[in-house]
Amino acid sequence: MRKHEKSESIESSKLSCQELLTIACVQFEPRFGDVDYNIGKSVELIERASNSGAQVIVLPELCSTGYVFRTRSEAFELAETIPGGPASKAWSDVARRLGVIIISGIAELDGNNIYNSAVIVTSSGVLGVYRKLHLWGDETLYFEPGNLGAPVFDTPYGRISVAICYDGWFPEIFRIAAMQGADLVCIPTNWVPISSQESNGIPISTILHQAAAHSNGLVIACADRVGVERGQRFVGHSLIIDHTGWPIVGPASGDREEVIIGTVDLGLARRSRNLNKYNNLLDDRRADVYSTFSEL
Amino acid sequence: MRKHEKSESIESSKLSCQELLTIACVQFEPRFGDVDYNIGKSVELIERASNSGAQVIVLPELCSTGYVFRTRSEAFELAETIPGGPASKAWSDVARRLGVIIISGIAELDGNNIYNSAVIVTSSGVLGVYRKLHLWGDETLYFEPGNLGAPVFDTPYGRISVAICYDGWFPEIFRIAAMQGADLVCIPTNWVPISSQESNGIPISTILHQAAAHSNGLVIACADRVGVERGQRFVGHSLIIDHTGWPIVGPASGDREEVIIGTVDLGLARRSRNLNKYNNLLDDRRADVYSTFSEL
Repeated sequence: MRKHEKSESIESSKLSCQELLTIACVQFEPRFGDVDYNIGKSVELIERASNSGAQVIVLPELCSTGYVFRTRSEAFELAETIPGGPASKAWSDVARRLGVIIISGIAELDGNNIYNSAVIVTSSGVLGVYRKLHLWGDETLYFEPGNLGAPVFDTPYGRISVAICYDGWFPEIFRIAAMQGADLVCIPTNWVPISSQESNGIPISTILHQAAAHSNGLVIACADRVGVERGQRFVGHSLIIDHTGWPIVGPASGDREEVIIGTVDLGLARRSRNLNKYNNLLDDRRADVYSTFSEL
Repeated sequence: MRKHEKSESIESSKLSCQELLTIACVQFEPRFGDVDYNIGKSVELIERASNSGAQVIVLPELCSTGYVFRTRSEAFELAETIPGGPASKAWSDVARRLGVIIISGIAELDGNNIYNSAVIVTSSGVLGVYRKLHLWGDETLYFEPGNLGAPVFDTPYGRISVAICYDGWFPEIFRIAAMQGADLVCIPTNWVPISSQESNGIPISTILHQAAAHSNGLVIACADRVGVERGQRFVGHSLIIDHTGWPIVGPASGDREEVIIGTVDLGLARRSRNLNKYNNLLDDRRADVYSTFSEL
């Protein structure tokens, strides 16, 4: 396991190279149970993002199947093995063809267990899988809690960590990503409206991910879905936040399919954890105090 | 140590009593080194807050001495023992007279060590002291890092935890507070402007504390100072955020002395951690995963 790397000093950072990365978040409306349509639509939007220069492309949670399952057997029938299933195969093919990295939500079948997962594919095929650690609502009826930890995937375009939707309510996830040296956290999501969570049209999800980006020096890219599925509305507002904690693109609309694209400097993000000549966001942690509470 | 209490079920919460609490944040401009003036001004504003119904009153970081020390001996001369020093005595007196709880920043002398502390006083006198865990910038030259952990103080008006300024950049602090059953986190602060930390006039501190309140079901009250001291500007924007993560008062101005006052329902905050019939913000933590990274 990699401990976060010491950032360069403030002085030398001015001389440092940029490490530019162009990221896209694909916000679209999957159709429940129509895997062929969803895969086709996602590939079309991946191509559009790539044509606009995107190197890393994030898609929503469970976007090849839809989200609102009514029975476990329904989820079981729609879930697929990784690799080999139709969605991971299609995304691997398009990643190879375009030379992009895709992070997308997928219903994963492993033996008789189903996971709310994200697959990470590169031009070499499936690089890894993340299984959602914190299940939300009825998901607990159909999916197993993630059992693959919170890994960081090393890619040619940077170190990428993944979280899915409700995972983002747990600041621990972003901290663990940063402490392992992640540059970017990609978030496939299906945010639902909750009355107390919006103010002036801004969902609280925007605020949570801004805070996570700022307090860890991370870039965070959230791809949400839109539309109404079996009576459940989703809120859109996909966004890309840089290490300062402020969005560089988005939030997107609450109801339209769109591809948002932005360019970040990962070199700047890495160096940003050195706040001044005394403080570093990760080194300043008081693990001696926090560990006292680990058994709570 | 108290583990967070199980919240009541969603159904029963509709029948539950309110537990209203009126909180004030006093935003003012201390004068460096003029302890008499600062104490007098703080007592005047505490009286104003109490007259408006405040039960818990939060004051800024280091507000009896000022913030921008140039030498350790200068800080040493201005710091005071608790109890017994002039500021803790004056705040204890006014707390007794008005029946309020005061949480205020103070330079604390303990033997030959100086701490950037907050004192908690009730109508019975000094209830406790919190010593800032995460020191910022030149503070590291004059103050010792906090060595009293992250306690929760039981008061007649609820369970109060304390953090000071840069502590708020560490989500662990709010998590520990919530896991110990805190209702309210009081934040004496001296936020300074950092160019990358403002967007549309909103300091990133607003975002960080909104996220902490929402993802822990906590009320958070931040009292910042204003003005310029020895060339250092402070940003104001004091605010009170309820458990939803949205401010109920503030952010205040960036440059004026003012007292902001708001009423929260602590009963609602406690119950808010139950999100639905499957999810609870604290019970859903994946400590099995997080603990893997405690040594990072």
